[in-house]
Amino acid sequence: MSASESAPIRVALDAMGGDKAPGEIVLGAVQAAREYGIGVYLVGREEAIRAELAKHDTTGLDLPIIHTDEVIEMDDHPATAVRRKKNASMVLALQLVRDGKALGAVSAGNSGAMMAASLFTLKRIPGVDRPALGGVFATKNSPCMVIDMGANTDCKPEYLQQFALMGSIYMERIFKISSPRVGLLANGEEETKGNQQVIETHQLLKKDAALLGLNFIGNVEGRDIPADAVDIVVCDGFVGNIVLKLSEGLAETILGLIREQMTSTIWAKLAAAVLKPRLRKVFKKLDYAEYGGVPLLGVNGSAIISHGRSNAKAIKNAIRVARQTAETGVAEAIAEGLAKLEKDRPASAQAEKMPQTEA
Amino acid sequence: MSASESAPIRVALDAMGGDKAPGEIVLGAVQAAREYGIGVYLVGREEAIRAELAKHDTTGLDLPIIHTDEVIEMDDHPATAVRRKKNASMVLALQLVRDGKALGAVSAGNSGAMMAASLFTLKRIPGVDRPALGGVFATKNSPCMVIDMGANTDCKPEYLQQFALMGSIYMERIFKISSPRVGLLANGEEETKGNQQVIETHQLLKKDAALLGLNFIGNVEGRDIPADAVDIVVCDGFVGNIVLKLSEGLAETILGLIREQMTSTIWAKLAAAVLKPRLRKVFKKLDYAEYGGVPLLGVNGSAIISHGRSNAKAIKNAIRVARQTAETGVAEAIAEGLAKLEKDRPASAQAEKMPQTEA
Repeated sequence: MSASESAPIRVALDAMGGDKAPGEIVLGAVQAAREYGIGVYLVGREEAIRAELAKHDTTGLDLPIIHTDEVIEMDDHPATAVRRKKNASMVLALQLVRDGKALGAVSAGNSGAMMAASLFTLKRIPGVDRPALGGVFATKNSPCMVIDMGANTDCKPEYLQQFALMGSIYMERIFKISSPRVGLLANGEEETKGNQQVIETHQLLKKDAALLGLNFIGNVEGRDIPADAVDIVVCDGFVGNIVLKLSEGLAETILGLIREQMTSTIWAKLAAAVLKPRLRKVFKKLDYAEYGGVPLLGVNGSAIISHGRSNAKAIKNAIRVARQTAETGVAEAIAEGLAKLEKDRPASAQAEKMPQTEA
Repeated sequence: MSASESAPIRVALDAMGGDKAPGEIVLGAVQAAREYGIGVYLVGREEAIRAELAKHDTTGLDLPIIHTDEVIEMDDHPATAVRRKKNASMVLALQLVRDGKALGAVSAGNSGAMMAASLFTLKRIPGVDRPALGGVFATKNSPCMVIDMGANTDCKPEYLQQFALMGSIYMERIFKISSPRVGLLANGEEETKGNQQVIETHQLLKKDAALLGLNFIGNVEGRDIPADAVDIVVCDGFVGNIVLKLSEGLAETILGLIREQMTSTIWAKLAAAVLKPRLRKVFKKLDYAEYGGVPLLGVNGSAIISHGRSNAKAIKNAIRVARQTAETGVAEAIAEGLAKLEKDRPASAQAEKMPQTEA
């Protein structure tokens, strides 16, 4: 089947990526096609994909296969693998996006490689210094994005400012939050709090908030993330990765402790049975699969990096998000926003450099 | 009553510090005196303290009052308050330690001021660049210390190395963990992971682990904290503060969601009643009051900074910890450890600087 025959109404899926590939991955595509009417390019080993498709009713679904034998493994070195495996399934998926044949690409495979391949294939949006991972967290009410979640460990204030803009555009368009609240993660709410990087970023965000159309609410603290006090939390990828892994670990530990107590006696088990459907609501709220994957923001096109442990539901949601990201013009809006900054910056930088002879 | 009449067998308590002062604070002292047989100097407004003491049976307890009218308020600027209020209750408590009249000082008041006053009054241990706050976290099994928890936002690798040593000595002596596992908080386990600061600190810790007697297990991730995979987590105070507040916030949110579901119907309420004593075990495990307070490590003497929200139990435990910190010689052991490093460092630094003419 040829990939070039139609306008880009499909999403390209790396069918070989993830711990549960290809079974759950292909099933996720089937569910997305059925539930949302999205066409999905299944990129990977044709035989393996066919075998999975045969297990489901795919009547009337638009699920073309793009065959390739090459796959980037979880333990491959990201940059090296992308350089050497030019026909890897995730690379071909991204090329479909680059060539205008797919709306977006999704992979639950080696996340470092997917990041490198996205950057290499789609390239950066003009004005973006560092593309960033925007992780969407479950909170008490609406979701909260932490950006960057691990792509960039050492960041300049300018990078963080760009993260703020990219995250704000994404949350507004994908989650329909109007004028989303942007907060800078710090060790206190006062604008004098933070390390050197954060103190400088605060001033930059404050200065350009109106120009960029950002609803910058100032510094936020760790507790504001789960409390739903902020919609976009800006931090470098070192801190963001710690936030992500601590949240996952802590939720697992607490729920584990509770489960343990609930099966400790026959009475506890009975009581637990009554409560189970209600507690399931809590677990569902904290379920990362709901959001499907993490967008790599700042590249030309929609690239969604799903968790290695993704199940069919996570993949289904990631496919939906990949389409939405393209259709709502996230990348274009980022380019427009940053152009304003570029236009403004040289002038103001010049002004600052002017000799103060007139004073 | 005079403070100088006895050998330092008492702990000095800022009776005016904390949201629940003086009621819960004085009660904590009464409980510590009763339960552990510790004498406690109650420093603050004599009349208010007497009124609280009158509510309890204090027969046979050693609870002398050191009167002062001056108190540092929660919203006072830390450094300024310490400079201006020379007779503030927390300052006098620390002076009792400095003068050898008390084993340690405890305050649940303005934590920035308590930190500044400790540094000013007790001074740094020779070899310590930056004293640090060692926060003790509840985990699945044994407690875990995160150091620094907020005293120092921007840190050099040498500071982090000192934090590792200080934390290790504390956890070994106060929590009786032999050869406690020291981990460096990063965004991945490989030693190449981390920001520039962490990558350099990793090499420093590896090089000197044997010399310092540290059980350095390498980089750890956010999820390792609640999972009890490490006993001391080393990070700068900016990251440590985010870890602390995120943990508190997330635990509150999850337990809140569960509570909400448990009271949603009459059946849920009945089932919840059965489970309540078991869930209380979980809540107790996550109760920060169990550990009473955060030591400021690296100063000459035992200074414990308790949470502003501390109740009597937290104060009781903080008083116990203040005594243990002094009696187990934490400060002396830190001085000894850092002396080894100083002795070693000039030599190796010299070697590195030697002109390479012999090669």
